[in-house]
Amino acid sequence: MPEIQARTFKGTRDFLPEDMYVRDKIIAVLKSVFIRYGFAPLETPAVEYLDILTGKYGEEADKLLYPLAYKGGKELALRYDLTVPLARVVAMNPHLIKPFKRYQIQQVWRADSPQLQRGRYREFYQCDVDTVGSSELLADAEIVALMVDVFTELAIGEAQVRFNSRKVLKGIISGIGFPTGSEQDVCRSVDKLEKEGTQTVKAELISKGYGKTLVEQFSALLMQRVFGHEGITLLRRTVQSTPALDEGLGEIETIRTILDEMDVPPESAVFDFTLARGLDYYTGPIFEADLIDKPHIGSVAGGGRYDDLVGLFLKESIPAVGVSFGLERIFSIKKSDSGAQADVNSSLDCLVSFFSIDQRADCLKIVRELRNGGVRTELYYKPDSIKKQFSYADKKRIPYVIVYGPDEQKAGVITVKNMKTGIQESVPRLQLLTLIKQLLTH
Amino acid sequence: MPEIQARTFKGTRDFLPEDMYVRDKIIAVLKSVFIRYGFAPLETPAVEYLDILTGKYGEEADKLLYPLAYKGGKELALRYDLTVPLARVVAMNPHLIKPFKRYQIQQVWRADSPQLQRGRYREFYQCDVDTVGSSELLADAEIVALMVDVFTELAIGEAQVRFNSRKVLKGIISGIGFPTGSEQDVCRSVDKLEKEGTQTVKAELISKGYGKTLVEQFSALLMQRVFGHEGITLLRRTVQSTPALDEGLGEIETIRTILDEMDVPPESAVFDFTLARGLDYYTGPIFEADLIDKPHIGSVAGGGRYDDLVGLFLKESIPAVGVSFGLERIFSIKKSDSGAQADVNSSLDCLVSFFSIDQRADCLKIVRELRNGGVRTELYYKPDSIKKQFSYADKKRIPYVIVYGPDEQKAGVITVKNMKTGIQESVPRLQLLTLIKQLLTH
Repeated sequence: MPEIQARTFKGTRDFLPEDMYVRDKIIAVLKSVFIRYGFAPLETPAVEYLDILTGKYGEEADKLLYPLAYKGGKELALRYDLTVPLARVVAMNPHLIKPFKRYQIQQVWRADSPQLQRGRYREFYQCDVDTVGSSELLADAEIVALMVDVFTELAIGEAQVRFNSRKVLKGIISGIGFPTGSEQDVCRSVDKLEKEGTQTVKAELISKGYGKTLVEQFSALLMQRVFGHEGITLLRRTVQSTPALDEGLGEIETIRTILDEMDVPPESAVFDFTLARGLDYYTGPIFEADLIDKPHIGSVAGGGRYDDLVGLFLKESIPAVGVSFGLERIFSIKKSDSGAQADVNSSLDCLVSFFSIDQRADCLKIVRELRNGGVRTELYYKPDSIKKQFSYADKKRIPYVIVYGPDEQKAGVITVKNMKTGIQESVPRLQLLTLIKQLLTH
Repeated sequence: MPEIQARTFKGTRDFLPEDMYVRDKIIAVLKSVFIRYGFAPLETPAVEYLDILTGKYGEEADKLLYPLAYKGGKELALRYDLTVPLARVVAMNPHLIKPFKRYQIQQVWRADSPQLQRGRYREFYQCDVDTVGSSELLADAEIVALMVDVFTELAIGEAQVRFNSRKVLKGIISGIGFPTGSEQDVCRSVDKLEKEGTQTVKAELISKGYGKTLVEQFSALLMQRVFGHEGITLLRRTVQSTPALDEGLGEIETIRTILDEMDVPPESAVFDFTLARGLDYYTGPIFEADLIDKPHIGSVAGGGRYDDLVGLFLKESIPAVGVSFGLERIFSIKKSDSGAQADVNSSLDCLVSFFSIDQRADCLKIVRELRNGGVRTELYYKPDSIKKQFSYADKKRIPYVIVYGPDEQKAGVITVKNMKTGIQESVPRLQLLTLIKQLLTH
């Protein structure tokens, strides 16, 4: 066999145990909040028919699909997100009782140029919750409340959810004088405001052919960017009222009222009329969460209402609202958080040392007893010198080593060494499990 | 947009919530045993370079790889198993302390003809544990003990692990007179014994060109298929001793002795000299688990020692031993088990009903209180008739409905309806959480 160099495809990653502990903890927090809010788990295949995925996300995204060869044909692709597969599942399972509230934590693939510094990968996880089949704003507000709860429990710094409605933004765009039909196009430019600034948005709009005076007037409004009630007041004062704008502002007021009733603090979820969100398919309220102390990281969750997508495969309208949490960004924050690191040093509670073949049977009984008691136990496989076994435990950061050597055997005791303090304690053999459990809970 | 029919690629599956509850429970059991035995989590990318995967599994398997197009080139593929990626990870991370004990629960893909009745899919999960970097038979025995523990805890019927050594089988093959170098080829035929019977194996060996008398003699031995010590006695009596056979039988005796020391009952793990395992890369002990009452299902776990594969990317030898659990078969058993079904009817504890906008704030406070107390709570989104809300809870099999209507408001109480018995109970509002928690634990 020729020599092959071991390597991974750029934009994909191995997660070694120290990474997995962090990721598993994050996912456990997400799941526990999702479940408490009444969302149920769903998984869909990684491989979908290509025609299920194309034409749903916009032209740019279609280019990022990974086509898959099967017996020559290229009719398959890896899933791009978890939303279109959800729409497919709803169409294929009419028996699902609505509102269907599901969460889904799975990988997605983008044939993109990975920018690893910015946390952009070709293979990454999405963590989505969606409520399908209700057009009540209570469902939208519940998603916002869930976002606030998730970030409180993740404890990665203060998070703020900003929310808006596509109706508000489109109302502003037409109210301020952009031609009818240009709303989506202008929205797409406004989406770059947070990341690239007003100048970029302005230049892009002008290059798209919109009038300079109009663009200047629009940019001036965006630059004021006041939140909450002040934002509503500003819009009512400066933008010509349209049915879309009025409806949108009505939605915003209802959502904020419900959030008050849910005890979500005003500063945790604020109205931001400049919020646009990238995806074409949003139809109503939209949400985005940022970490106040880490603005450079970008948004850590985003979502909104999309009433036309889920019914696509059924040719009927099925309202839906949801949010996607950015596991990769949350992971990069947790990973660099030294407190979290110390917490997950080892997945092992103890190492049982091994002295000689004669004592093997005793060691194996000790191992069995500990494992049956729920203690995460590794057995050293060879009768090496005890020094070597201690050093192994040390390198692997295993907190306790169980020693049952000839001396212990004679005295009918077992020695437990705390690898951090170096302190050794001997107990009668029958008390080992009790001692270890005591040590582990302290 | 043209109408696209919602459908999935044959051999891939959606897992709706009722399936996910079952799958999540199985995975939780597997993980808890893996962790107790000291295995640490690992994840690797779904997408690997094609040359990393080809030539490792045998010619047949290479045809089952899913090549992936990226910018025209076909240099990528979806992973075929979790073992070759493990070898790659070990090669790329020389800092990993050995023995490196990892578990990995992820999907794999095979461009196969799916046989859904037989549980063969194009996309499915593998659940692997492997110990890399130890050649001690203690590591092999520990894998067998772990297999026994997993099936005890899964509670899907009595399981039996059969074990053998490739050295024993190869020793028999050469000892009985097959030409040198034919061992692997004959092994591959013997692997069909369990599924397709002696006649098929015989016919295949003859069609491969081996002498009829030799094949008859070999088949006669295989047909005796006695387990444990009896098997060892039979081989010592009928097969000419070779170094491979002696070494292999020595391994078998050591493993069974260690298993005795581990308190693994003799009938839970037995020596079966006809066990062959399909994969080419095994070099020593091999294991397979079956359910005694469900032989038609086939093996539910399999593994062995493979000392040459992990070092492949390093051009050095790194011993390894492991096992893979068949999640899909375990899932199909659990799913058809009515006891397990009843257990996972709903992921919800209660539904909070919704009477009128006036009472919305109160309802939302109740929802918040319950969720903060860890109760999995759904809020009904619209002030529909209470009859409709009860019927919704019924259809969704939610066990309790919380009623806070005008009557309750006046009396300062909350009513809890048990949807199974129809019994309603009213308590002072402040006692709601206590009552619900009491009801849920009974």
